[in-house]
Amino acid sequence: MGFLDGKASGVAKLRMPAEVTQCLRDLLCVGGKRLRPLLCVTGWQAAGGCGITEAVVRVAASLEMFHTFCLIHDDVMDDSSSRRGAPTVHRRLARHHGQGRGTLAAERVGAGCAILIGDLALAWSGELLHTAGLTPRQLDAVLPLVDDMRSEVMYGQYLDVTAAGRSSTDVDQALRIARYKTAKYTVERPLHIGAALAGAQLSVYEALSAYALPVGEAFQLRDDLLGVFGTPEVTGKPILDDLREGKHTVLAALALQRADRDQRRALHSLLGTPSLDEVEAAHLREILTATGARHEVENMIHTLRTQALRALDTAPFPPSATAHLRHLTGTALARTS
Amino acid sequence: MGFLDGKASGVAKLRMPAEVTQCLRDLLCVGGKRLRPLLCVTGWQAAGGCGITEAVVRVAASLEMFHTFCLIHDDVMDDSSSRRGAPTVHRRLARHHGQGRGTLAAERVGAGCAILIGDLALAWSGELLHTAGLTPRQLDAVLPLVDDMRSEVMYGQYLDVTAAGRSSTDVDQALRIARYKTAKYTVERPLHIGAALAGAQLSVYEALSAYALPVGEAFQLRDDLLGVFGTPEVTGKPILDDLREGKHTVLAALALQRADRDQRRALHSLLGTPSLDEVEAAHLREILTATGARHEVENMIHTLRTQALRALDTAPFPPSATAHLRHLTGTALARTS
Repeated sequence: MGFLDGKASGVAKLRMPAEVTQCLRDLLCVGGKRLRPLLCVTGWQAAGGCGITEAVVRVAASLEMFHTFCLIHDDVMDDSSSRRGAPTVHRRLARHHGQGRGTLAAERVGAGCAILIGDLALAWSGELLHTAGLTPRQLDAVLPLVDDMRSEVMYGQYLDVTAAGRSSTDVDQALRIARYKTAKYTVERPLHIGAALAGAQLSVYEALSAYALPVGEAFQLRDDLLGVFGTPEVTGKPILDDLREGKHTVLAALALQRADRDQRRALHSLLGTPSLDEVEAAHLREILTATGARHEVENMIHTLRTQALRALDTAPFPPSATAHLRHLTGTALARTS
Repeated sequence: MGFLDGKASGVAKLRMPAEVTQCLRDLLCVGGKRLRPLLCVTGWQAAGGCGITEAVVRVAASLEMFHTFCLIHDDVMDDSSSRRGAPTVHRRLARHHGQGRGTLAAERVGAGCAILIGDLALAWSGELLHTAGLTPRQLDAVLPLVDDMRSEVMYGQYLDVTAAGRSSTDVDQALRIARYKTAKYTVERPLHIGAALAGAQLSVYEALSAYALPVGEAFQLRDDLLGVFGTPEVTGKPILDDLREGKHTVLAALALQRADRDQRRALHSLLGTPSLDEVEAAHLREILTATGARHEVENMIHTLRTQALRALDTAPFPPSATAHLRHLTGTALARTS
């Protein structure tokens, strides 16, 4: 927050609109699970890092700032209406700048502002990183991982965007999206980056990956289930969005594989319908359950979870770090939001 | 290009869509004035840098990659159809991924892809910079300038987006947008960054600003004139876009100040009309000329140009750098594209 305070006062000096830093502050403060900063700190501890230094805190903060960028741009791309229980940035700014503009023009301004605020968050996440006071050795270890993380999540998101609205039975493709968009980005890379700060050996990176990839994929599968069967008041996201976008998820791919002819026809015609109503959504949920896809995804989560926990059994981490990862696994995969 | 080759082969290994690097390559190769890399090298020479080192080339390349990010996101925000004489990235990808999708869905996918490719270009511009092999001293000097440059252009663009479609007589605001969006971003910061690589003294930075700010503002004023009165075949941009967006330019602000009642009514009703046709555009051009606004902007360009050239008379640069800046001034301000 100190970083944003600095930016806000710089902004005031330049007579620039304060809403930019305000939007970021609101999104950063309103909640979120802070999963990536937590995992970054845990990676640091797993590799033998002691205490929590200022440098580790700033790197963790830079991950959260980067994530804020991801959320803002994702919401523009999906045209989501709410995030963490509040209006999304592009919706909020469309209203703010909408006076005297037609609906389309207001939406365009809102989207433009949100794209730019996301761009600033991305640029500022880099700034937080290179002003974190890392040693040259830490920088050499961390920067390539951050570069990879950025490219991976953007690619994963790219696959997600281009696959949306094209229902298919391709489970592998859906899993690849989950791996890039979530497993690597949300779990593996934050752990690696924290470990890199502590000068980790190769064996530590490998043990972190053996835990992170299955747990991360399971996390995305849980997310897919919540996106369809969750309670909007708890998730903070509108419940129909995933179905309306026709996201190419493992859940949808499995359902299409197992559907009979009528079910398949309903899935193809309803998934990705922007005007989908509650009745149609209920019909889709019935099919996703009746085909056994929902149950199968729950099974996959269970298997991946077991795999992740087993990887911890032989991991060369201090016991406190292992305990922390076990605890995180529970909360991340049994979550309701 | 070597950097993009590396990214392209990494992409192939991951079975990711090759269109991402292809779009960036096409945009980087198709033309553009390479103004920022040129100015970066000139700043290096102005501060006494000798020859052109690999590090300078990579920093210059990172500026061009950053600029590519700016162009892609700008085109999404403005929904421009062409850039440098070719379809914009979001239009190209809307067509590429459009098969079997409705128009709206295809546009949405195109915009999503372009936002992500822009994000990648922004992330990769950072990667090009921190893998440029700079000394710790060079990094310390350059990184804060790059941070400022990024924030400044995004803020300038933010002002531009929120002011569009709100015709007003506020010339100062229009000049502030020109300063942030163009003068600092396109001219001052690239010069400063090059100078920082050569370990410039404060006097060099000041002399560069004294030249860069007027020439950069003049550059934007020339751009505004070309956006309304230019030849699309030469500029590579559709001629009606600026008028249809109702960009808050000095040209429009001056015209509103000087307009009689009928002219003012026409300006308010036509500027920012998305469906503006050729006849209406011709009418707007007539008013912009008849009010004397066009002439006044030409005068401002002349004054700013004189101011910039005068700053060079006393600048503490090697003669070759001064000569180069004089030459650039001529081509940048007398340009037709």
